[in-house]
Amino acid sequence: MTFWVTGGNGFIGRNLVRLLADRGRSVHGLGHGAIDEAERRQLKLAEWINGEIDASNLSALAERGGLPSTILHLAGGSSVGLSIQQPYEDFSRTVNSTARLLEWVRRSAPNCRLIVASSAAIYGASYSGSIPEEAEPRPVSPYGHHKLMMEQLCRSYAVGFGLHTTVVRLFSVYGAFLRKQLLWDMCLRLQRGERELVLGGTGGEVRDWVDIRDVVKLLANLAERQQGEKFQVINGGCGAGTTVAEIADILTKSWGGQASVRFSGVVRPGDPFSLVADGGKVRALPFTWEIPLPRGIADYVHWFKEDTR
Amino acid sequence: MTFWVTGGNGFIGRNLVRLLADRGRSVHGLGHGAIDEAERRQLKLAEWINGEIDASNLSALAERGGLPSTILHLAGGSSVGLSIQQPYEDFSRTVNSTARLLEWVRRSAPNCRLIVASSAAIYGASYSGSIPEEAEPRPVSPYGHHKLMMEQLCRSYAVGFGLHTTVVRLFSVYGAFLRKQLLWDMCLRLQRGERELVLGGTGGEVRDWVDIRDVVKLLANLAERQQGEKFQVINGGCGAGTTVAEIADILTKSWGGQASVRFSGVVRPGDPFSLVADGGKVRALPFTWEIPLPRGIADYVHWFKEDTR
Repeated sequence: MTFWVTGGNGFIGRNLVRLLADRGRSVHGLGHGAIDEAERRQLKLAEWINGEIDASNLSALAERGGLPSTILHLAGGSSVGLSIQQPYEDFSRTVNSTARLLEWVRRSAPNCRLIVASSAAIYGASYSGSIPEEAEPRPVSPYGHHKLMMEQLCRSYAVGFGLHTTVVRLFSVYGAFLRKQLLWDMCLRLQRGERELVLGGTGGEVRDWVDIRDVVKLLANLAERQQGEKFQVINGGCGAGTTVAEIADILTKSWGGQASVRFSGVVRPGDPFSLVADGGKVRALPFTWEIPLPRGIADYVHWFKEDTR
Repeated sequence: MTFWVTGGNGFIGRNLVRLLADRGRSVHGLGHGAIDEAERRQLKLAEWINGEIDASNLSALAERGGLPSTILHLAGGSSVGLSIQQPYEDFSRTVNSTARLLEWVRRSAPNCRLIVASSAAIYGASYSGSIPEEAEPRPVSPYGHHKLMMEQLCRSYAVGFGLHTTVVRLFSVYGAFLRKQLLWDMCLRLQRGERELVLGGTGGEVRDWVDIRDVVKLLANLAERQQGEKFQVINGGCGAGTTVAEIADILTKSWGGQASVRFSGVVRPGDPFSLVADGGKVRALPFTWEIPLPRGIADYVHWFKEDTR
């Protein structure tokens, strides 16, 4: 069994490549970013092509190491903010790359299974409480719209052309090697010696935080199991909502020393107040969320201090 | 006021260009297909660029005749059958071209209004009775999926970047110069002297038939009126359902002579049994459907006989 990971050089991608390789899988990757030989060997990545997800690169990867049995498709836009500044770029990275991938699979590897990373952003800003997979998608940002369009395309190819596809809507993924967003920004400021942090928003925003180590285990488990339905969608969230204020509190305590956190009350337009998964479908899988939030955050702080020493 | 028509060389496009020009508008176009000078003048098309909907062609068109006040976007895939044979081609023509258009408008002509042709195919095959615009989209074919993705992208740009956009979901458009589908096929066979026609399906399939002359009037009216909402969706159907058997009967009577029609009973997979608009929203516009079906079909038969003489 050969696994391909698109976007293998990203935050989730690197963690996923390593886990699959640790499980003894042959892992090949394609996406943006140079990975030199030493790094490639360290990641246990059998092959890496630095480039666009397009027919010529996909065929080149197949020539090097054979057709894939499963593709874990993580490539795509990765920032709500950037998608607002450069919407066509985000469209192109998320929707266009998926269109080229699906067409190549249809023509060249129709028995290959697909695990596709989508986002809770497709639900938008109008839900409170836990959101089941059947909820009507109401994305707000271009990023969310493009992820929803990507899902639509996956559904079209699965139903119309029989490609076995699982879409995983990831919630708030955090962990070592994530060098952006709330936790990263807070650590940077604490490291600079700030002791009175003022954060945006109200602090009451609720998210479904999941540790990267659990997330890649979920993706790997999905990739390795037999799938009945041609097309399925699964929430990649644990179902527990935690406010930004609680997260900030856990993080400052993990950091050590005295620090206070206040909130500006200025809410980013379109920022959802609550994004929490109905986690029933994922709990029915052979999979368990293992890393509790305090431990995950403590590990993140530890990694940050090591990483920036 | 300068109007641009993308896909201006297609069945709807050519009819729309002529109507807008007859109303005294300056009409410029972009899309696939060579239009020579004599034809361009006859269509009263001020400018025509034969090529992709992309930034360079859009900018070239603007250099020739100024920025558009309204773009009527008709370019895109035009066949359910072809979308099944070549899904990436259909994606590229429908979704990709719209992405490039919206991005160009956002950057270069943000005050330009957009009238975008979508399709009843986005509703899919699971409805009976009249379908309101709020019905959940459940497309079946790649063509329908891609049109829905296109709508999604329009919504994203309208809500996120303020582009004034009206999406019109066209139902079963027929009329002079349509050289494919049921009416064309039947006329061809009657012209060859067949008098016992066997058609696919059951004959009970219901469609909302609208004459091209009414359809382009609807599109032109929408383009010329002030629009309140940033983004709106309107069914381009009259709200009356007519079965294929009834249409076939009207057509054979219009043709003259004796001919019988039978149905094979073999239904194309995914072919919706019923696609009829809830026409309330369009009836609330300053617009009236004027051409009754028997007259429209009789005119089509007349055109066919002239055209193929």
